[in-house]
Amino acid sequence: MALDRKLEKQLRKIVGKRNVLTLPEQLTVYGYDASLDRGQPDAVVLVDSTEQVAQIVRLATASGVPYVARGSGTSLSGGPVPARGGLVLEMSRMARVEEIDPRDRSAVVQAGIFNLKIGEALKPYGFTYAPDPASQKVSTIGGNVAENAGGPHCLKYGVTSHHVLGVEVVWPDGTVEWLGQDGEEAGYDLLGLLIGSEGTLGVVTRVKVKIVPLPEAVKTMLAVFDSLTDAADAVSEIIGEGILPATLEMMDRTTIQVVEDSMAVGYPRDAEAVLVIEVDGPAAGIQVEADAVAEICKRHRARELRVARDDAERDRLWAGRRGAYGAMTRIQPSTMVADGTVPRTKLPYVLKRVAEIADKYGLTVGNLLHAGDGNLHPNIVFDASNPEEKERALKASFEILEVCVEVGGTISGEHGIGLEKRNAMRLLFNERELELMRQLKHVFDPQDLCNPDKIFPVA
Amino acid sequence: MALDRKLEKQLRKIVGKRNVLTLPEQLTVYGYDASLDRGQPDAVVLVDSTEQVAQIVRLATASGVPYVARGSGTSLSGGPVPARGGLVLEMSRMARVEEIDPRDRSAVVQAGIFNLKIGEALKPYGFTYAPDPASQKVSTIGGNVAENAGGPHCLKYGVTSHHVLGVEVVWPDGTVEWLGQDGEEAGYDLLGLLIGSEGTLGVVTRVKVKIVPLPEAVKTMLAVFDSLTDAADAVSEIIGEGILPATLEMMDRTTIQVVEDSMAVGYPRDAEAVLVIEVDGPAAGIQVEADAVAEICKRHRARELRVARDDAERDRLWAGRRGAYGAMTRIQPSTMVADGTVPRTKLPYVLKRVAEIADKYGLTVGNLLHAGDGNLHPNIVFDASNPEEKERALKASFEILEVCVEVGGTISGEHGIGLEKRNAMRLLFNERELELMRQLKHVFDPQDLCNPDKIFPVA
Repeated sequence: MALDRKLEKQLRKIVGKRNVLTLPEQLTVYGYDASLDRGQPDAVVLVDSTEQVAQIVRLATASGVPYVARGSGTSLSGGPVPARGGLVLEMSRMARVEEIDPRDRSAVVQAGIFNLKIGEALKPYGFTYAPDPASQKVSTIGGNVAENAGGPHCLKYGVTSHHVLGVEVVWPDGTVEWLGQDGEEAGYDLLGLLIGSEGTLGVVTRVKVKIVPLPEAVKTMLAVFDSLTDAADAVSEIIGEGILPATLEMMDRTTIQVVEDSMAVGYPRDAEAVLVIEVDGPAAGIQVEADAVAEICKRHRARELRVARDDAERDRLWAGRRGAYGAMTRIQPSTMVADGTVPRTKLPYVLKRVAEIADKYGLTVGNLLHAGDGNLHPNIVFDASNPEEKERALKASFEILEVCVEVGGTISGEHGIGLEKRNAMRLLFNERELELMRQLKHVFDPQDLCNPDKIFPVA
Repeated sequence: MALDRKLEKQLRKIVGKRNVLTLPEQLTVYGYDASLDRGQPDAVVLVDSTEQVAQIVRLATASGVPYVARGSGTSLSGGPVPARGGLVLEMSRMARVEEIDPRDRSAVVQAGIFNLKIGEALKPYGFTYAPDPASQKVSTIGGNVAENAGGPHCLKYGVTSHHVLGVEVVWPDGTVEWLGQDGEEAGYDLLGLLIGSEGTLGVVTRVKVKIVPLPEAVKTMLAVFDSLTDAADAVSEIIGEGILPATLEMMDRTTIQVVEDSMAVGYPRDAEAVLVIEVDGPAAGIQVEADAVAEICKRHRARELRVARDDAERDRLWAGRRGAYGAMTRIQPSTMVADGTVPRTKLPYVLKRVAEIADKYGLTVGNLLHAGDGNLHPNIVFDASNPEEKERALKASFEILEVCVEVGGTISGEHGIGLEKRNAMRLLFNERELELMRQLKHVFDPQDLCNPDKIFPVA
């Protein structure tokens, strides 16, 4: 539907004439994210302050128009896709670091700032912001909060919800409230409820994050295995022994080869699996921890253990892991990344089933895993312009989620449900449980205008 | 009101005749907790399984009778007090460790188990459960979840919500659901909402906790100061320097003297403040960290630094801290412990204001602080049997909370709102915000029978 003329005028009054986009070619680029889902907004509004967001939300609510806040559109589940049209609130101008307080171990940033920029601002103080989604170069803290984003270092440090001390939120009725520290932390944990609610309960405009000291020392190693099961068993044993590395990332043969084709970071092409393991902490204790990890890898038949000798080598090992998702597009134009989490000890079984499902549908799947967390990302590569192939990819993806649930896991580790996995919610929840969640949304958003149609099954 | 005969009969059928208590002298002892609040149940039901809890909740819901689950009654805010009568579900028989899985870093326990018992069961495996409320010898994990309990070691390890991976809950409609790991972790974070909801949204029957490796080494020290401000500044600087001790506890002169009168653990009676600081981690790095802490304390004029040479000395240092609350009753029969949290850097100012408020009302206040977290517990000692004195204590307590809010803090660090602090909720929330929380409760508990009258202001 087209934008109401009066509403358009009011929007331009709030943010300035040039900050409301309505040309079709402008709207198209705000209709997608990194998933396969697509939508089309009626207008894109470039906002620059909480007050503007509040005014726009009030206006949208009064006009019955849906709205969704958008960071960089890196969501892998359709989170910022305007499923029902309406307004996209473009947050990228709200990207300032407002306060850094090492004594309080906190920083206040605006929602549109890139994740990595927070760490860069903190570095001179000897601190960092721990959660590091692979998209951290461009994904925003607002989006991270919406999806409760994870990342390699979340194994040791915890996911976004463990690092958010407070948020400023614009509720669907247009009121502004600080939740958590610097404000209201008592009664029900609304902050916790908001984190990971995929933008469906309100628009987050500011975030007070916990900052952690940069580790005194870091050791990064690559462990190379001739068997996927051996690698997975090594992961289980490292954790079971009470060692908590900063990261325990795993890539399978398909992923290794794609990465090497694309970046040549030096992963061995003939390996069945590699682990990227990082330990960090006080310099005095780090060698002991690294040795313990190496010992366990050897016990599980690691054929090679390579320790990064300097920052350049460390960066190279990480470049492969962080760039793996992007590299997948070398094989086929589209990638669909499943995001299941299972008990760590079930990883070998689940990876076997993933391979069987890929075979069944004649698809190539490369596995990337936050193995320490039991979080797997099977990347299905295919051509979305071929409807039959797309259909197969969707079916395979759904079956992978079924396997995750079957072994006691869940359908999302960190990417959210969004549009893509709405129907998979039924694998976990019965109608009564879904209704309870719908009622929760209704309490905050009685008109169902705040990023509607996400999370809940459609049929 | 007396218990309906038919209901009583049905209850006895569910749990067995002897497990329903209705004699007045039995009911009286289940009407209180460690706060000043009192109630009187119509019946106490000793439950032994989730199925029994579910049946009783269904029965209570069908009969319109309020109910509340009760652990050991150590709540400091009136949490398990049956404000409106009805049923008390006594959980102490549900105290089993059901599963310990070091490879998964988790354990499953029943809600009625004592906090410390979990640690004892994990010790042979080299693991522990980190959150350690001062009441840990007797407080139950169910109560810990309800109040989102903290404790000295939560500075480094995080509070209850960071260590609960999942819970089994009986909702007010009597259905049973696993939230979080081992079940349903997608969509809205119902697990997060339940933790800290003070038993008002459902009855938790099982808890899957995260287990952490016992630290390889621990160093416990006592730092002695002649000035409260110096001690508080040392705390701020330790944290600001990027050091994260396992604990950073503070006691003021009044508390030190009460502890020494009661236990003679060896705190210096003439000091203005002591810090109990513990660092833990890999043996190789621990001395460096301890030295850094000592250096900062000296810079802030600590007159003495005592490092525990063995476990016996460590236990003695901790006995003073953990026993301090109980020791307060030596001065006066009643203790009212305020539980505010403020930015660490505001501690010196807030402690000065607390002293002024104590003077104004002619009361003795001993301060116990989880200083590293900015969480202060001013213990007001008085005689509750003297109505005028009780009134003064209540007023002083409320004014202390006002000061906490004034400096940007909150009215509860870990004890919850319960009955005691209901009216203080207005210091933080406006009517609209409270109404939103009431509506959330209504979604789960439309008849308002599940631990009613808690959290929300009455007038």
